[in-house]
Amino acid sequence: MTVAAPASVHPASPGTGARAADILERVRTFVHAEVLPATDHFDTLPPVPTPASVRLAEAGLANWWIPAEYGGPGVSLRDSVDIVSELSYGDAGFAFGSFLSVLGTTMLQLSGADALTRPHLERLARDGGVLGILASEEEAGSELGRITTTCRRAGDSVVVTGDKYFSTNTDAADLLLVVARDAADEADFGVILVPRHTEGVELTQRWNMVGMRGSATYRVALRDCAVPADHRLPGNGLRLLEIGLNASRILIAATAIGMARRVRDLAMEYAASKRVHGAPLARNAVFAGKLGQIEMLIDVMRNQCRSAAEEFDGYLAGGDAAGALYRVGTLRSALAAKMYCGQAGWQVATIGSEMFGGLGYTHEHPIGKLVRDLRYVGLVEGGDDVIRELLFTRYVVPTGKRR
Amino acid sequence: MTVAAPASVHPASPGTGARAADILERVRTFVHAEVLPATDHFDTLPPVPTPASVRLAEAGLANWWIPAEYGGPGVSLRDSVDIVSELSYGDAGFAFGSFLSVLGTTMLQLSGADALTRPHLERLARDGGVLGILASEEEAGSELGRITTTCRRAGDSVVVTGDKYFSTNTDAADLLLVVARDAADEADFGVILVPRHTEGVELTQRWNMVGMRGSATYRVALRDCAVPADHRLPGNGLRLLEIGLNASRILIAATAIGMARRVRDLAMEYAASKRVHGAPLARNAVFAGKLGQIEMLIDVMRNQCRSAAEEFDGYLAGGDAAGALYRVGTLRSALAAKMYCGQAGWQVATIGSEMFGGLGYTHEHPIGKLVRDLRYVGLVEGGDDVIRELLFTRYVVPTGKRR
Amino acid sequence: MTVAAPASVHPASPGTGARAADILERVRTFVHAEVLPATDHFDTLPPVPTPASVRLAEAGLANWWIPAEYGGPGVSLRDSVDIVSELSYGDAGFAFGSFLSVLGTTMLQLSGADALTRPHLERLARDGGVLGILASEEEAGSELGRITTTCRRAGDSVVVTGDKYFSTNTDAADLLLVVARDAADEADFGVILVPRHTEGVELTQRWNMVGMRGSATYRVALRDCAVPADHRLPGNGLRLLEIGLNASRILIAATAIGMARRVRDLAMEYAASKRVHGAPLARNAVFAGKLGQIEMLIDVMRNQCRSAAEEFDGYLAGGDAAGALYRVGTLRSALAAKMYCGQAGWQVATIGSEMFGGLGYTHEHPIGKLVRDLRYVGLVEGGDDVIRELLFTRYVVPTGKRR
Amino acid sequence: MTVAAPASVHPASPGTGARAADILERVRTFVHAEVLPATDHFDTLPPVPTPASVRLAEAGLANWWIPAEYGGPGVSLRDSVDIVSELSYGDAGFAFGSFLSVLGTTMLQLSGADALTRPHLERLARDGGVLGILASEEEAGSELGRITTTCRRAGDSVVVTGDKYFSTNTDAADLLLVVARDAADEADFGVILVPRHTEGVELTQRWNMVGMRGSATYRVALRDCAVPADHRLPGNGLRLLEIGLNASRILIAATAIGMARRVRDLAMEYAASKRVHGAPLARNAVFAGKLGQIEMLIDVMRNQCRSAAEEFDGYLAGGDAAGALYRVGTLRSALAAKMYCGQAGWQVATIGSEMFGGLGYTHEHPIGKLVRDLRYVGLVEGGDDVIRELLFTRYVVPTGKRR
Repeated sequence: MTVAAPASVHPASPGTGARAADILERVRTFVHAEVLPATDHFDTLPPVPTPASVRLAEAGLANWWIPAEYGGPGVSLRDSVDIVSELSYGDAGFAFGSFLSVLGTTMLQLSGADALTRPHLERLARDGGVLGILASEEEAGSELGRITTTCRRAGDSVVVTGDKYFSTNTDAADLLLVVARDAADEADFGVILVPRHTEGVELTQRWNMVGMRGSATYRVALRDCAVPADHRLPGNGLRLLEIGLNASRILIAATAIGMARRVRDLAMEYAASKRVHGAPLARNAVFAGKLGQIEMLIDVMRNQCRSAAEEFDGYLAGGDAAGALYRVGTLRSALAAKMYCGQAGWQVATIGSEMFGGLGYTHEHPIGKLVRDLRYVGLVEGGDDVIRELLFTRYVVPTGKRR
Repeated sequence: MTVAAPASVHPASPGTGARAADILERVRTFVHAEVLPATDHFDTLPPVPTPASVRLAEAGLANWWIPAEYGGPGVSLRDSVDIVSELSYGDAGFAFGSFLSVLGTTMLQLSGADALTRPHLERLARDGGVLGILASEEEAGSELGRITTTCRRAGDSVVVTGDKYFSTNTDAADLLLVVARDAADEADFGVILVPRHTEGVELTQRWNMVGMRGSATYRVALRDCAVPADHRLPGNGLRLLEIGLNASRILIAATAIGMARRVRDLAMEYAASKRVHGAPLARNAVFAGKLGQIEMLIDVMRNQCRSAAEEFDGYLAGGDAAGALYRVGTLRSALAAKMYCGQAGWQVATIGSEMFGGLGYTHEHPIGKLVRDLRYVGLVEGGDDVIRELLFTRYVVPTGKRR
Repeated sequence: MTVAAPASVHPASPGTGARAADILERVRTFVHAEVLPATDHFDTLPPVPTPASVRLAEAGLANWWIPAEYGGPGVSLRDSVDIVSELSYGDAGFAFGSFLSVLGTTMLQLSGADALTRPHLERLARDGGVLGILASEEEAGSELGRITTTCRRAGDSVVVTGDKYFSTNTDAADLLLVVARDAADEADFGVILVPRHTEGVELTQRWNMVGMRGSATYRVALRDCAVPADHRLPGNGLRLLEIGLNASRILIAATAIGMARRVRDLAMEYAASKRVHGAPLARNAVFAGKLGQIEMLIDVMRNQCRSAAEEFDGYLAGGDAAGALYRVGTLRSALAAKMYCGQAGWQVATIGSEMFGGLGYTHEHPIGKLVRDLRYVGLVEGGDDVIRELLFTRYVVPTGKRR
Repeated sequence: MTVAAPASVHPASPGTGARAADILERVRTFVHAEVLPATDHFDTLPPVPTPASVRLAEAGLANWWIPAEYGGPGVSLRDSVDIVSELSYGDAGFAFGSFLSVLGTTMLQLSGADALTRPHLERLARDGGVLGILASEEEAGSELGRITTTCRRAGDSVVVTGDKYFSTNTDAADLLLVVARDAADEADFGVILVPRHTEGVELTQRWNMVGMRGSATYRVALRDCAVPADHRLPGNGLRLLEIGLNASRILIAATAIGMARRVRDLAMEYAASKRVHGAPLARNAVFAGKLGQIEMLIDVMRNQCRSAAEEFDGYLAGGDAAGALYRVGTLRSALAAKMYCGQAGWQVATIGSEMFGGLGYTHEHPIGKLVRDLRYVGLVEGGDDVIRELLFTRYVVPTGKRR
């Protein structure tokens, strides 16, 4: 496979840092004004796009990671970690819906089909909006090699048929990237660009999720959806997906940072009014110990996400980003970030769910929602068992990759 | 304090074992017919009594633990553990609502005021129905010594005033037991029998609980509720409450057994249809390991609950049950049962919440509800921090009590 | 397989309880006089039998579990749990060496070859002494079905050949029970009684163990060891071994109780002299919480071990103990006891190893040895992975065995 | 307090990176040649300096972190993390002894007393050798404010008197930094430079440590040790110590990386020869899962240590390093690194100690030593309870420091 990477996808141009800091500050303000007050609303499985999503785009804060060469703000993945931490401090479901397009835009950027993908990237940078990915299936959740959705060539078209199980942002998207098995070669998988309103794209169900209810996830039927033949991206579809998952997994991991910070701050708020054995709760050694543990976990999650993101940014900034990422595939640090933040986040959820007395077991307190939301970090885009196996086969078995 | 215990509160009469086994079998059948199909209904915070509660009473299965001398079935606490395991296999909230009266009936039995309490116990045995306890307050959740609700003597009456924070079964109860501080002696606490419809008893809120939503928990205002002066039980109210909590804590612990069994069975059901790497999930070593761990936890929880219950049964069957229990107060084994089952149950919840893929993160699968329900075991009637402190001060610090 | 069980292997004769209580009290005294002062000595991998072992036998306290019909004290396994808790409070390695013969005596009792086994049981009851088991091999640690040691018939003899990897008490034993594959039928396994000093029995190495150094474990070569043909016990050797492991696994589990109690008491001793933030350590909430957690774990371990032991005692006291145990094989409760106590014990080890400051990281303090000793509970006679798999295949997969 | 920081303590001069990479490579080679083969020797509590320490210095690899301006190699703390990971892959005790002087050299560098400290730093850079710190005392382990060792002015001398409890590298050091309370102002603490062979410095005991036995730790009596009055460093001694602890805590954390890598590699070595259920161990899903978990932990530990080290390097490279570090004191990231690596390392120790069957419980296998060595990460320079409290009071309570 020869894939020409764009000359410079992620220039560390002067001012990038300042721009990122400015965006981060604006996001923080936005979250306090628009997201935190709407927490209960997000938990109702609201129609999407939510008013907050619309306003995020209006404020020019959507799709902040799209590179400058496509007209985007070009914020690095490293800085995106902090942005996602802020967004998910407000609502992790809203954050998820806001950044998940990074999976697809990364694939578009690195696909080597610039003529096809550039207009889409430019539109996403200019107008906001989301990009949907249709990958997992009922019998192909963690094992994508078992995908049964097919793409087949028919004249000048490629026709996609199959059923996708969990797909986020699908309804609001203009464009879908469908991962499908080649009907003519079952070992080959393609990624096909399918406009959302192509005939045959049917959203059969919006899932009633346990948490992350501010985002919208669907079951999708693809009934002989025909698109021009050149809408299939070049190269191995599963590998391209794997490359994109580096970015989305790191940002999924980063949502745990924001949620853990929220738990910490809620605890300190609670401690201000609560007394134990006649003294303020904040002077209780057991309480202090729990907060100290949470603070440690936050710091470690943040550094792991940032480090993984910097590694990914390094690939993007390198000479042949696409080629290099095709060779390396899934990054150890991205796998570790998602798995670690899932585990650390659940530790915070466990501590948090015991911290607010009976009130914490009612819907009058946000901790219940945070526990439900935190659960997803360890589940989406590869549960821990899947990630452990990937780490083992990709990075432990090959002696040369151990470090 | 001189408290005369009833001569024989819990006779191990011939036939008790057979009767308990029969009741257990009938409960199991009832759960499969009436409770399991209504799981979704229970999760809606339904009006209480629920249809299932009504039918449980109609089937003569309510308040199964009330001793034969009051006309009850006289099932031991040991056998009640198994009954609660069955009930909570169906729905833990329903189970909680069904057995929680044991806290109050134990207090009535052991109060030494037979003339006052016998008619109530006989009615509960005969008609079913529930008995409410009003103990914890907003600022006295885990530290009951900080209760501010007062009882004061006014002529032939005792008048109760205050606000109670979390009180289960209050609305459906005929009788409430209120724990209050003596207005004339702030070191003294009384338990006062207050009929549910006494003037001044106001249910100000039904809590919107995170889990256990098949039970009903309220915030209650007591506005100068006057009852005859003899409605105050003799003796130290906090100690009497502590004695009753032995029974309810053990049965709360037992709900975790039923829920863990349910998780196990759901996992095996799921494994029947799911494949990993081309083989049935049940042949996967990681899956098997998780189920093996859960099976161990179930066995240990069951033995701990049964052992604690046998210890309590032993006190009830002994010569001076009330006196002996006044001396010992809270049982180490009951504290350990509740704390252990809370921790083991949460371990099962954690494993279970990662076991059903994406589907397990939707409301189409019962695991989400089980995770929420399992959380309460470690929270009600003393969070882990409170229980740890009790174990330490009562059973570790006194050298002679270590064993 | 038809196996006639001895008529009454474990009579609950009047006085058994009193005798057990007396033995327990004498063991406790013995431990404080002879074992606790020799802790450092036990940690040196001393020659066996140790002076303490000799004195235990002289005091008539060896092999306390051997039934009265063989002239033994006939203490139940239930009461043996408490005895082992006391012994391991002193030194777990010493305890292990003292009770491990229960594995072999149980096999002898239930083998159905009374004429052969009775004299050995009577001698062990009368003289003390130990019985060794040679089962696991280098390539057959957890999977005993891979044993390569063979037994073959040669005239009136049976000849045993092979290498055994970990065998405790071998040198001090008079009699060894060797588990071997039948050279004539590789699906058949036998248990052969081999006197310790049979020609060809060679102890090739005493293992330098990490912990439990008060016991002695060897690598053993069996070079054509010939014994009379009737020295092979009837029936399936692996099944008989499995039955015996119920008893030894429960008592291994019970060592964790004693060690955890020791950690607790050492912590309270330390707290008496130590201050934190100007107050005694015992008033520190974090310290109290740790001790409360340990106390809970001790209670749960004890109840699980006792419950499992009672189940085993129930089989022994039943009509056809051998037949019933052949049918059931390994008991769920025994597996759960060993696995749970291994995990709970390690939790105590972890807490304990952080509790004594820098001093706890020196050999001046016993916690380091306790941590090493506690580790073995989860390792011997089946690591956790093996136990989890057994629980899964034996008790979760068969629907009818779930409870 | 006005403290002038050296103009440029840590220049990122061209070539630094290359030099660090070269040193790292040489250290790796050294470890495989000199350290790994001597593992058993290190575990014997050998005399120090060990032959390996001497050869490390001869190879010019000692004190690699000393800045170029003092004639040292000037390797950053960031790169030192990787060097320490390599050293501790060989032996963590040897690593500890090799890098611990960083605590003292950092204090010397930042003390603002260049005339006094420069010759010592130059000597350490030129000749190797170690610098000892005498801080903790028997009753001032985690609470350094309770130090009772005093320093008092007597003419042109300052006289130091007291007892220090755990002090590593003392005997081999040329120079000791003693933290003592000012006899004239009990709120004031000083750091005094005391040459090792000053009269009155007595090593009363070499501790028989549980692990890290390749390093040497002593109990030290200071009997009226008189040194010139200018040997007291300016400024607040406890604060200066706290600043130095940032460096040593990060490198202590980094030893867990090396040890975890060693456990991983030993497991893969073991898996090469071991079979489970007829297949190679490496194909067993449970084994793979454990290794995947360990690989994740290694990656997260490494990124946390590197991030914390980069933060510290940033302070050193900044304009007024000493001033800035005096203001910030103990870094959140350094606290988090030590606490996290202690916890993650213990998780690896726990997994590892169950992974090698019976052999892993003997001294024939290195895992037992690794478990003992890993334990120290969570104990030295602040146990987890202390670190949690520090994180809470320094970084959670002050609202403005939360992030």
